[in-house]
Amino acid sequence: MTALGARSSSRPVEVIHVTPTARERRQDVTAAEEPLEIRLQGSSFVVTMRTPGDDHHLVAGFLLAERVITAGADVRTIQHCTDTPDLGNVIDVVLTGEASGRAAAALAHRRLVSMTSACGVCGRRSIDDVMESVPRVSTDVRVPASLISSLPARLRTAQAVFEETGGLHAAAIIDRSGAIVAVAEDVGRHNAVDKVIGARVLAGAVPPAGDILFVSGRTSFEIVQKAVMAGVPIVAAVSAPSSLAVDLAKDAGVTLIGFVRGEAFNIYSEPERVKQ
Amino acid sequence: MTALGARSSSRPVEVIHVTPTARERRQDVTAAEEPLEIRLQGSSFVVTMRTPGDDHHLVAGFLLAERVITAGADVRTIQHCTDTPDLGNVIDVVLTGEASGRAAAALAHRRLVSMTSACGVCGRRSIDDVMESVPRVSTDVRVPASLISSLPARLRTAQAVFEETGGLHAAAIIDRSGAIVAVAEDVGRHNAVDKVIGARVLAGAVPPAGDILFVSGRTSFEIVQKAVMAGVPIVAAVSAPSSLAVDLAKDAGVTLIGFVRGEAFNIYSEPERVKQ
Repeated sequence: MTALGARSSSRPVEVIHVTPTARERRQDVTAAEEPLEIRLQGSSFVVTMRTPGDDHHLVAGFLLAERVITAGADVRTIQHCTDTPDLGNVIDVVLTGEASGRAAAALAHRRLVSMTSACGVCGRRSIDDVMESVPRVSTDVRVPASLISSLPARLRTAQAVFEETGGLHAAAIIDRSGAIVAVAEDVGRHNAVDKVIGARVLAGAVPPAGDILFVSGRTSFEIVQKAVMAGVPIVAAVSAPSSLAVDLAKDAGVTLIGFVRGEAFNIYSEPERVKQ
Repeated sequence: MTALGARSSSRPVEVIHVTPTARERRQDVTAAEEPLEIRLQGSSFVVTMRTPGDDHHLVAGFLLAERVITAGADVRTIQHCTDTPDLGNVIDVVLTGEASGRAAAALAHRRLVSMTSACGVCGRRSIDDVMESVPRVSTDVRVPASLISSLPARLRTAQAVFEETGGLHAAAIIDRSGAIVAVAEDVGRHNAVDKVIGARVLAGAVPPAGDILFVSGRTSFEIVQKAVMAGVPIVAAVSAPSSLAVDLAKDAGVTLIGFVRGEAFNIYSEPERVKQ
């Protein structure tokens, strides 16, 4: 066990808070999201996107669910690697007895794939692999702030099942006039986004798949990554973005908007695409 | 394209609605969650947990994000397979030209692994593989309904970052007396659950890791799967469960509770563990 796991689970961020009458710069915080590479006895096993902190607990719980360990006694050590540039984001587990054999079998079965909802990082070793090759989204589209504020009501009108079950995430592609050109619901956020982008792709509209991607919940790295690959310049959400969603949006030139509620919202990157 | 994708995105479910003064059987609906196996030109590529419907859109959007296709023209056909027992849950994509070469490379890189947040299904071909080998959770623990209703307040007291960023999921392990024995927050629901179970495992407490697993959001298959592997008999959540979470809870003998709000909640399985 190491103290490296005790890092902060939030990151400071500068936002532009927009209301119908004002636009003001504010300091805010986002939930920290970073990749963690889990190694079993020195060999890379999986990469997951997580909030740093309690990493050794995360690893033990994951290995229990994966049946690599059956109890705490199966774990000899769990330690962050100190010989890598991704300090604090690579962790190695040394196992005892039978668990060691199960680890070898698990490694043979699955190598270096992401098990998170972060599809964008599947099969990649580190976040750098993804960030490096991300294309930049460039378009001169401009939308009024009032259009952004109208997105929740537009999505609600188009949504069918959510009200009924309370269990689905929704996503929509909206054009600069405010028209919904694709809408989908799914138990998985990333699936709802894949569905609306896929609908546009199959209709021949890529890239870009549309002007705005709007999602009902939070924004993670994967959501922004999917927007980037589809050339969508504006990503807006009802709830908060993660720290890595903000980082990627800045890198890729995407306008990232969060907390779209009532007549106000926050802009995290590329604010010039939203007119007052 | 086939009409198989147009299945219902909700499933009927019978719940027991519990209030301080009554306990009544009700008909309700849950968001449908089922595995989808995506094949590229006949070869299995990934399995994802999704809500059935618009599957061809889901596949196109996913393949765009994975850089296997760059436009709709890269897709020759997307069709549900009719020669499998999992009718409607296996879909095959035939690609054109260069996309065909990229598909081969993608297949070589990653075979049959889940890219969803459903860690429990990673690397497995079908849900049957998981369901078959799930151990049954059996314990004589009984908790009062008032303890279930008190969980949100108990979690709020123990939570640190959520209020600040609005971007984290929380999970806690609670014992039958109502004491929180582990609590964690993460951008990923499954990570928060791994962290609390892992904390208990490393403290020597498995199985079972505790009496109640409480999560701040929705319950999917993976959350229940992790509770089962840790021997936790009661899973409670602020929001809705998916259809597959309910199915697994019934199969594994887990008491699944949702919509814990105010003094009321719904029980989806094994209701006898909750006393009035």
